[in-house]
Order: sequence, then C-alpha cells, then structure tokens
Amino acid sequence: MPPLKSWLKIDPKSHFSIHNIPFGIISTTNAAQPRPAVAIGSYALDLHAFAHGNGFSKLSIVQPHQAVFSQPTLNAFAALGRPVHRVVREYLQSVFLENGPFPDVLQQDDQLQKAALVPLEQCKLHLPMQIGDYTDFYAGLNHAYNVGVLFRGPQNALQPNYKHLPVGYHGRASSVVVSNTPIRRPTGQILASPAAEKKEPILSPCKKLDIELELGCFVCKHSALGEPVNIHDAPEHLFGVVLMNDWSARDIQAWEYVPLGPFNSKNFGTTISPWVVLIDALEPFATTGLENDTVLLPYLNEKDRKSHYAIDLTFSLTIPSATELLFSFPQMLAHHTIGGCPFNVGDLLGSGTISGKTKAEKGALLEQTENGKTEIELEGGEKRKFLEDGDIVTLSGVCGKEDGALVGFGNCVGRIEPALQLKF
Amino acid sequence: MPPLKSWLKIDPKSHFSIHNIPFGIISTTNAAQPRPAVAIGSYALDLHAFAHGNGFSKLSIVQPHQAVFSQPTLNAFAALGRPVHRVVREYLQSVFLENGPFPDVLQQDDQLQKAALVPLEQCKLHLPMQIGDYTDFYAGLNHAYNVGVLFRGPQNALQPNYKHLPVGYHGRASSVVVSNTPIRRPTGQILASPAAEKKEPILSPCKKLDIELELGCFVCKHSALGEPVNIHDAPEHLFGVVLMNDWSARDIQAWEYVPLGPFNSKNFGTTISPWVVLIDALEPFATTGLENDTVLLPYLNEKDRKSHYAIDLTFSLTIPSATELLFSFPQMLAHHTIGGCPFNVGDLLGSGTISGKTKAEKGALLEQTENGKTEIELEGGEKRKFLEDGDIVTLSGVCGKEDGALVGFGNCVGRIEPALQLKF
Repeated sequence: MPPLKSWLKIDPKSHFSIHNIPFGIISTTNAAQPRPAVAIGSYALDLHAFAHGNGFSKLSIVQPHQAVFSQPTLNAFAALGRPVHRVVREYLQSVFLENGPFPDVLQQDDQLQKAALVPLEQCKLHLPMQIGDYTDFYAGLNHAYNVGVLFRGPQNALQPNYKHLPVGYHGRASSVVVSNTPIRRPTGQILASPAAEKKEPILSPCKKLDIELELGCFVCKHSALGEPVNIHDAPEHLFGVVLMNDWSARDIQAWEYVPLGPFNSKNFGTTISPWVVLIDALEPFATTGLENDTVLLPYLNEKDRKSHYAIDLTFSLTIPSATELLFSFPQMLAHHTIGGCPFNVGDLLGSGTISGKTKAEKGALLEQTENGKTEIELEGGEKRKFLEDGDIVTLSGVCGKEDGALVGFGNCVGRIEPALQLKF
Repeated sequence: MPPLKSWLKIDPKSHFSIHNIPFGIISTTNAAQPRPAVAIGSYALDLHAFAHGNGFSKLSIVQPHQAVFSQPTLNAFAALGRPVHRVVREYLQSVFLENGPFPDVLQQDDQLQKAALVPLEQCKLHLPMQIGDYTDFYAGLNHAYNVGVLFRGPQNALQPNYKHLPVGYHGRASSVVVSNTPIRRPTGQILASPAAEKKEPILSPCKKLDIELELGCFVCKHSALGEPVNIHDAPEHLFGVVLMNDWSARDIQAWEYVPLGPFNSKNFGTTISPWVVLIDALEPFATTGLENDTVLLPYLNEKDRKSHYAIDLTFSLTIPSATELLFSFPQMLAHHTIGGCPFNVGDLLGSGTISGKTKAEKGALLEQTENGKTEIELEGGEKRKFLEDGDIVTLSGVCGKEDGALVGFGNCVGRIEPALQLKF
C-alpha cells in the first residue's frame, strides 16, 4: 500500500504521519486547561476545539460522547473502548486525507483550522492518562540475561521462573512523569564498599544512575477483583503504547532489593513519551516476539502470537527493535490478572528493558558498561559509565521505513538535575 | 484522667468511645450516595447531614471547607491537614460530651439527631480513601525473623539491609478493599514438587492461602517529585491508622518472587478496616517500637521515638501488640521519600506483618504452622495449616483497657470464596 497523502503539509520524516494519529493531552498559553489532542505532522489537532467547532458532525457514533474531548486526561476517551478508538482514528485520518470524503469539515474551514490546529512548538504536553496503578515487567530476555550474567554468572543468569511467566513488580504510579520533566538525582542508602564483609550503608547521592529503555502500554478496560482477563480478550483491554525510561539507581537497588524487590531505586521518576500511539496504528507492524523454548501454561498461550511490534528504538546510540521481548502485553495482562488482580482504565504496563545482543543494542548503561567496569563513548567524544548531572537522555521509537508513512512516538526526554543538598 | 462521658448511650466496651471519633465513608438504603461520617458507640454521625443541618455552626474554622463532608471519600478532608483534623475531632467530642459546651447543636436538636445519627447496622461502609499508591513495608522484626528462619535458617534469617532501612515493596492500590469484601482464592503458577530439581510450574488454585496481620496508615499531605519528607515533618503527613489484612498466596509467592519481589501472591486482595482512627486519637497510647541495635543513618533518626502505638491486635487467636515493629510510619515515609518519590493524599503505607515471639502471637499462618508443617487448632476444634474456602478471618485492634475510653478499630473481615473454575 502506498502511503496515504494529506492536504496538510507534513514532513515525510515526521513520526506523526497520517498513518499514526497518536493521542495526547495539551495546553497552550492562550488556553491553559489541559485537553485531548492528536498529533499530525508538526501540529496538534485540539480535540476540544475540534468537537466544539462541530468537527465530529460526520461521525454520529461519537456525538453522544464528545464530553470525553474536554477532559484533562485521555481516561474517558480510552474507556469508550477499542471499537470507538478505531473509528475516531480512522475518521480523523479521513478528515486529513487529500481528496478525502469530508473536505468541508476542516480542509475548507479556515476558522476551525485556526481554532483547532496548534503548532506543536506552542503546546505544553501533559501526562496523557491518570494512572491508577503502574506495573513494570522484565520481559526483555536479553536484558534479563545480561544482568543475570553480571550478578550471578552465565550458568544461573536466568531464574527458573523466567521463561514460564512474565516476571514483574508493582511500580509507583505517582512517580510517572511526562517527557521533559527534570529528573533529580536521588539520594539513598548505598554501600560504600560493597565487597567488604561488614555491610555498612552510607547516605549518598546515587553514583550509578542509569536508564532503562522500555515500552509502556496503557489499559483501557476495567477488570474486577477476582476476575482474570483471558489471554484472547486481553488485546481489547489495551489502549496504546508509549516510550518509557524507567530511570534506575543501581547502587541503591543493589543494597535494598533483597528480598522484596526494587523500591527507592525506581520510584524517583519514570518518564513516558507524551503521545499514545494506538494499538490500531501499530497493527501494520505486528510481528512475533522472541521464541520461547519453554512450554507455556495454557492461560498464557496466544492464538496469534503477532502481538509484538517492530519498533526501531534509539537512545543516541542505536538500540534494537522492540521485538526483543519474550512476553507480549496481552500475556502480561493475562498473567497479571490470573489471580484476580483488578485493573482500572489508565493503568500502565511496562515491558521491561529492551536489549539486543550487541553492546550498542543494550537498553541500559548497567549492561553497556558491565556495571561500570567499562566506559561507553558518546557522540561528542565524552565517556560515561553512568549518567552525570546535566545529561539529557532522549529515547526515540518509530515503526516503518517509508517516507510519509512513519508511525512514531516522538521523543521521551529527561535531564538529570544534581542531587539535593540534604541536612539532618 | 477519667473517661469522658457522653449524653449518647455508648456501650462501655465499644471501640468507638467518645475518646476515639474515627472517620469513615457510609451510605444507607435511603441515601445511597457515599459520604463521610464518624463512628460513635453504635451510631454513625453522618457528617454530610450534620453539616447540612448547621452542626458546624460553632466551628467557624471549618465552615469554608464544609464541602469536604459531601465528598465520596475522605481525601478532601484529609488534605485540610492535621490541625484541622484535630479541631474537628475535638469539636465533635465536645458535641457529644455530657454537660458539654454545645448542647443545642445536637443533644437538644431531635430533628438533627434524626437526620444525622444513623445506627451502624444500617450503614454500608465503603473504602474510606481514594488510594493513589499503596506501599507495604516489612517492619515486623519478629515476622521477618521467623520467615527468614523458615527459608534460610537462623544464621541468615535477616538480610544485611533489614535493620538499616524499612524494607518495603510497592503494592497494588486497585486491590485494596474494605472489610467484608469477599476474597476469592487466587489461581496462579505454583510448583507441584518444589523440591524437584526440574522446576515445572502448574496452574492451580492457591494451596497455601494465608493472612498477614498489619496496620495501615493513610497519608494526608502531598509531597513533590524530588522532595524528600524530613523525618521530623513526617508526622504531619500522616492522617490515621486502619487494620490491614494483606492476604498472601504463599505457594505463588515462593515461585514468582525472585528477583523482583512479591506480585500476584499479593495483588488479589488486601482488606482494610473501614474506620480511620486519627493519629490524634492514638497519641495517648504512643510508645516506642522495638529497640534497633543498629546505628541508623541520620535521615531516619526520630527525635521522639514514641511514634508507635500500643494497640492490642487479635485474629480469633491472641496476637501481640503493635509495638512489635522495628520502624515507625514516620520512618517509613522518610525512607520512602529520601530519593524523591512523591506522595499524594490518600496514599497508604502498610506496616508489614506484626508478630510477637510466641506461637499464638504470630501474625501469619506461614509462621504459626511453619509453612504448613504443623497445624493450629481453632476454637471449635477444627485444624488448619492454611486457609480453607469459607473461612472468615476477622482482625481486631483496640487501644486502652478502661471501660468507656477504648479507642478501637472495629473489625477487618474477609471470607474466602472458592477459586474460579478456569478453562483455556
């Protein structure tokens, strides 16, 4: 299929081609109230203004629900369900289509264009969803193996449970922030001499500040306490995908994580990209994840294993494709709810760090530098073992190669602020 | 100080003496909208009706904020801060006081009594707070030691970090439910033969369903990303305390918890008692926790270590006092935020299982039966290793011994429903 063409001028390299139509929450200097929008080329289409200006006049199914486009988060829109997301996205594509069916809606309406099309550089972007709960998985097989080798050697790199279930932990919803929110270097208990026999912690700014390159997936359907989500129903529960940087304090983590898992090493900030790319936009890039050589229990068996997406991920260095996962989001949800854990619209699932097999394809510095034993060289020639104050980390992800048909995530950006000077 | 006396008839054994005044959320058949109330004797004082009927006429400080008493949760009231909680509680005490200063407010107003005093047996009780995030700690030293002995032997029972910081993990806010919500036995991956060399999980209803007797503490003050809460400010961030049963699936936990901690073994339900006992009501019972023989880092040093409370806890069998904790809620909050983790009003902190040193004082069956090796005998003569379907677990907690001056939590109740029959 050749790329669709829009009457709106869109840079062919834009992540926000007419094939994408990702949803986010914007505000502007003139209109400070956060409200839903979609990104298209270098514009945001303000859906509050669009609905207000009768933009949905040709889509009767949405008219009773237009209040969702005046909410400060996407939760109400997400809760309408995937069939509605699909028709809204396709309708908006048709509104922007050259020689499309509805030229009078926006293309020929200068007033509505002026009211609803906002240059992206004028937009402040907000957290797209109100997140009730956030869970982070560990489905990046190569990452889990690399980290396992570092801490336990190659024989015991993967724990016995690793291939049987998507290992995960509950994260901290309050610490999920949108791209461009500064991340302050955390202070915490670390071991000054980890090798010493007597384990005496000191309080210190983190010295091993790291990134984790992940995908995040938002849930759009409630599931009740005690009611598992069947693996075949799970895709209908998934709203869309964002990039995620699960900042990690490796020295705090090493001291605190036994026996209950990571805690303060993770809850000082997790950055997500602002635009939610709908599952429907990713369908053309659906593919299988990593082969699992373990026979899975039936509740994790997907009929169609194409529930991973071929997304090229980068963070300055080239990083592998998002197909390097052992478990998919539907499998994560089916596992998460098998015991009856309830979900709310807006809940977030993280994939775990996505690493390829080569050094440059590793999604965390922990792996790239072997826990600080080696250094990596940045583009400008500077070297790093872990992150330094002032460092700006930018994650990027895009599906497709064809100019004018890219489905991308934009950037997921965070800058490291110095630790607080604390006194007690 | 002799007990205060009320003009309202209150059973001297009531947990809800005039010394208590705990806050909760009620609804009734006639008025289905959930709304705030306090418990006193065998009544709830409906604060929406009380405010509406001019009950706060003598408390000018509260009048601009009366809308908080028409909310479906206590979050807005909690957010007013501890000085306001204090005056509201003391005012309500004075309204109920025999020969008190305000007899015209309620005692002599039959109409307002009829509108606002609702027999507790007519009340449906709801979750008192909207919980954004829920964290569970592990501060019960005896519990941690007993469990450590079971799994690693007495030499390595406690991990090196245990006495240096309150070990904790992020829980699942969506699975916190109010007392009397049925708990369905979870299904999950367990090892059929844990001792076998080849670790092959099966999908099965949990066979080692357990309780964990804990206290929960609600937070009433926002703290921002990157801004630690100082240990000396922490008490002002704490709203009140509830009983908590952190239901646990021990066989699911044993298989899943390495290396990221407990997950589906915990997120199928955590039951809390419906009435939040304010910190002010607990102050007369303030005392020190367990002595910590480890020198703490300064950020965890409390000036006044009396931030534990002498609460007698029971669950059918007699269970120890809540002073058996190594870390206090202020220490938990100071530690939780030291790296910058933000908090929202309504966030919940769990203490961890509270166990004494004798068998009958152990707050989980895992400890009482040594992971199912022995049995305990219930009052009726029945025996248990772990919970069976239909079992009803009731936690109870009360401060004080003096008739008419008890400060109690009421009950925290859950009944085990059979596992779902799942087909794939």
